[in-house]
Amino acid sequence: MASRRLVFRLLAQHKPLGQLSCNQATNRCRSSQRRLSSFAHTSASQHSSTFLTKYFGWAALSLLAASPFLYKMAIPDKLNLDSLSLVERDQQTKRENAITDASPMRLRMEKFVKEKQKEIVQALEAVDGSKFQVDEWQRKEGGGGITCVLQDGNVFEKAGVGISVVYGSLPKAGIMKMRANHKNLVDGEKIPDSLEFFAAGLSLIVHPKNPMAPTVHLNYRYFETAKPDGTSGAWWFGGGSDLTPNYIFGEDAVQFHKSLKDACDRHNKGYYPRFKKWCDEYFYNKHRNESRGIGGIFFDDLDETVQDKENLFAFIKDSLDSFAPTYTAIVNRRKDMPFTEEEKEWQQIRRGRYVEFNLVHDRGTSFGLNTPGARVESILMSLPLTAGWKYMHEPKPDSREAKLVEVLKHPKEWV
Amino acid sequence: MASRRLVFRLLAQHKPLGQLSCNQATNRCRSSQRRLSSFAHTSASQHSSTFLTKYFGWAALSLLAASPFLYKMAIPDKLNLDSLSLVERDQQTKRENAITDASPMRLRMEKFVKEKQKEIVQALEAVDGSKFQVDEWQRKEGGGGITCVLQDGNVFEKAGVGISVVYGSLPKAGIMKMRANHKNLVDGEKIPDSLEFFAAGLSLIVHPKNPMAPTVHLNYRYFETAKPDGTSGAWWFGGGSDLTPNYIFGEDAVQFHKSLKDACDRHNKGYYPRFKKWCDEYFYNKHRNESRGIGGIFFDDLDETVQDKENLFAFIKDSLDSFAPTYTAIVNRRKDMPFTEEEKEWQQIRRGRYVEFNLVHDRGTSFGLNTPGARVESILMSLPLTAGWKYMHEPKPDSREAKLVEVLKHPKEWV
Repeated sequence: MASRRLVFRLLAQHKPLGQLSCNQATNRCRSSQRRLSSFAHTSASQHSSTFLTKYFGWAALSLLAASPFLYKMAIPDKLNLDSLSLVERDQQTKRENAITDASPMRLRMEKFVKEKQKEIVQALEAVDGSKFQVDEWQRKEGGGGITCVLQDGNVFEKAGVGISVVYGSLPKAGIMKMRANHKNLVDGEKIPDSLEFFAAGLSLIVHPKNPMAPTVHLNYRYFETAKPDGTSGAWWFGGGSDLTPNYIFGEDAVQFHKSLKDACDRHNKGYYPRFKKWCDEYFYNKHRNESRGIGGIFFDDLDETVQDKENLFAFIKDSLDSFAPTYTAIVNRRKDMPFTEEEKEWQQIRRGRYVEFNLVHDRGTSFGLNTPGARVESILMSLPLTAGWKYMHEPKPDSREAKLVEVLKHPKEWV
Repeated sequence: MASRRLVFRLLAQHKPLGQLSCNQATNRCRSSQRRLSSFAHTSASQHSSTFLTKYFGWAALSLLAASPFLYKMAIPDKLNLDSLSLVERDQQTKRENAITDASPMRLRMEKFVKEKQKEIVQALEAVDGSKFQVDEWQRKEGGGGITCVLQDGNVFEKAGVGISVVYGSLPKAGIMKMRANHKNLVDGEKIPDSLEFFAAGLSLIVHPKNPMAPTVHLNYRYFETAKPDGTSGAWWFGGGSDLTPNYIFGEDAVQFHKSLKDACDRHNKGYYPRFKKWCDEYFYNKHRNESRGIGGIFFDDLDETVQDKENLFAFIKDSLDSFAPTYTAIVNRRKDMPFTEEEKEWQQIRRGRYVEFNLVHDRGTSFGLNTPGARVESILMSLPLTAGWKYMHEPKPDSREAKLVEVLKHPKEWV
């Protein structure tokens, strides 16, 4: 029996659709999906082959989780179980059953990041006293993203909490590259021409107004490929969280690191030292010879060679759960502290460094910005509402500013 | 007779020298140069081989001119004319003769950009009413840079005018890559292991305070290699200038483009259309699908296949000469115009886009920031004192802001 495969696209191509006056955020184009499907398919394949070949690996995965994408697809006339794609199977499962611990990890992760997004947004709204703007582009056919941003609030100058759920197809070159880190990506020696994949993640960044309150970033993601028979192929988790203060408060640094260490230790005593080091190495502004902030944890490619899927998911949940209580406690201590004009200026300079890291060194951001049609506003929700660059600015010796720089040049062990 | 070759370094290695508490801006390390020379040589060769191999071509050349570097070298005991390096020859020439039209182009270009820097700094100071900070690291042995910055002035929020004069050595991989654009880089088929080169340029960026006054950027540079006998090998000029307004004033756009077109037309009627198009293509924020500004001219690799050296130098001089009178006239018209808080906010958003271009797409900046030991403060003098990012900001239809965006999406012919 003939059936049409869904046409799924990892990276939405806005240029051609722009002529049909589609709105990125609200997906007004549903009615014209059908007739666009074959064009969309060709165009998507070309782009994914070019870009995934060039950048695949960590960068792509990070982006998938860090920024939402639009999906454009044709609706199949009939479903044939034997030829169902990954997304069709998942849609069917979601229609027919509640998500439980027995559901595929894809659906459990999707459910989890959605719940966490709500929780975190509420927790931040409670601190700020004002509401997030919510941009959702969920599709009844499956997949989508939600970007929540609070801008110019009472406490937060900019806070973004985004989730994305992506179904796509890895081209051969991407499979070959990814195989270096994941031996079980393909059964046997023969590499298929493409491989369906799924990625879901939650990404967050908060820039408070008060220079005494630290900026924070967090990202947790899950990636999985599908075997031709529809069962799960390779999979892994990635993520982490890091703090970027303008002024060092030992109490905050210790609390932030301790909450992450506790979450790590409950699962594996080796995690924290390994992931803390990884974080210091990754969030490093090498052209300035200084770290972006005081770190936290960072990890990628956590698969069955590290720990089984259930236990890794439990670790991810624990780490994410620990975020909101810890960060809101830190912000509540700092948000009403007095500060001078010079301290506000220092915050602006530090934000400039944050922008430098994100635009120059962050692989996910760079991949996203070089990908045609990516939702730029979601990728760049990480950038502060205000930032500055002062030529040859040097903190005075022994000042609180100099003490921060000292720590950024020589990362400390906080717990 | 034995003589020691000068140890010259394109890229200063600050990390090892940092232990000797050298100050980047003031070169306190002269006395310890000698004993460091052999280490410096090894380290420099390693880095130049890695980085030049990876990035060579336009990017490297642009950087050389766009940002000053430190030089560290050993002083030779005696000079032997037969084995003099390019810099030694030039030093000798400068000691013995005044620079005239008969001098090598290297020395004429160096003299010219130094004179122009002074002139432009004075012209901008006259508009602003305050003085530039001047950081000079000229060495009596040859080569160096001068970075002039005016920050938080009366009219200008940040203005940077920098010159640099670089002597260095191209590794084999760099020669091979560069040869694609410059067939006469090497005589015959045998590619030497290294090739001495010279680069000099002037680079400028001005961000005015008043949102009605446009940001401007300019960069003119000359590159040359030396044959083993010390005579000039391959050479070429590059450069251009472009305007980035927050609000379109037709009068300003026309005046800016006309002054460039006039300079071009005096030398070759084909220059302006070709270089205007090149500018629109280069200064393009492709992740935003919009130009950085309203363009100007941009060119590179102008060598004997385009025009003879004398005539190209005359064109460069003409273009640079036209800058100060044109830009100061534009700024004088705009600097005292009234503006609203919303217009100031729009300026901040446009500056955010400027930062995005410079950090994400500009090849010279990217090369510089990925080069260990480069003088970051000079490379990033281009970034504004203040900038901002507002999530999902869209200008109101038919507003003056929307009119700017329309032009950025569809570059106009102004003259």
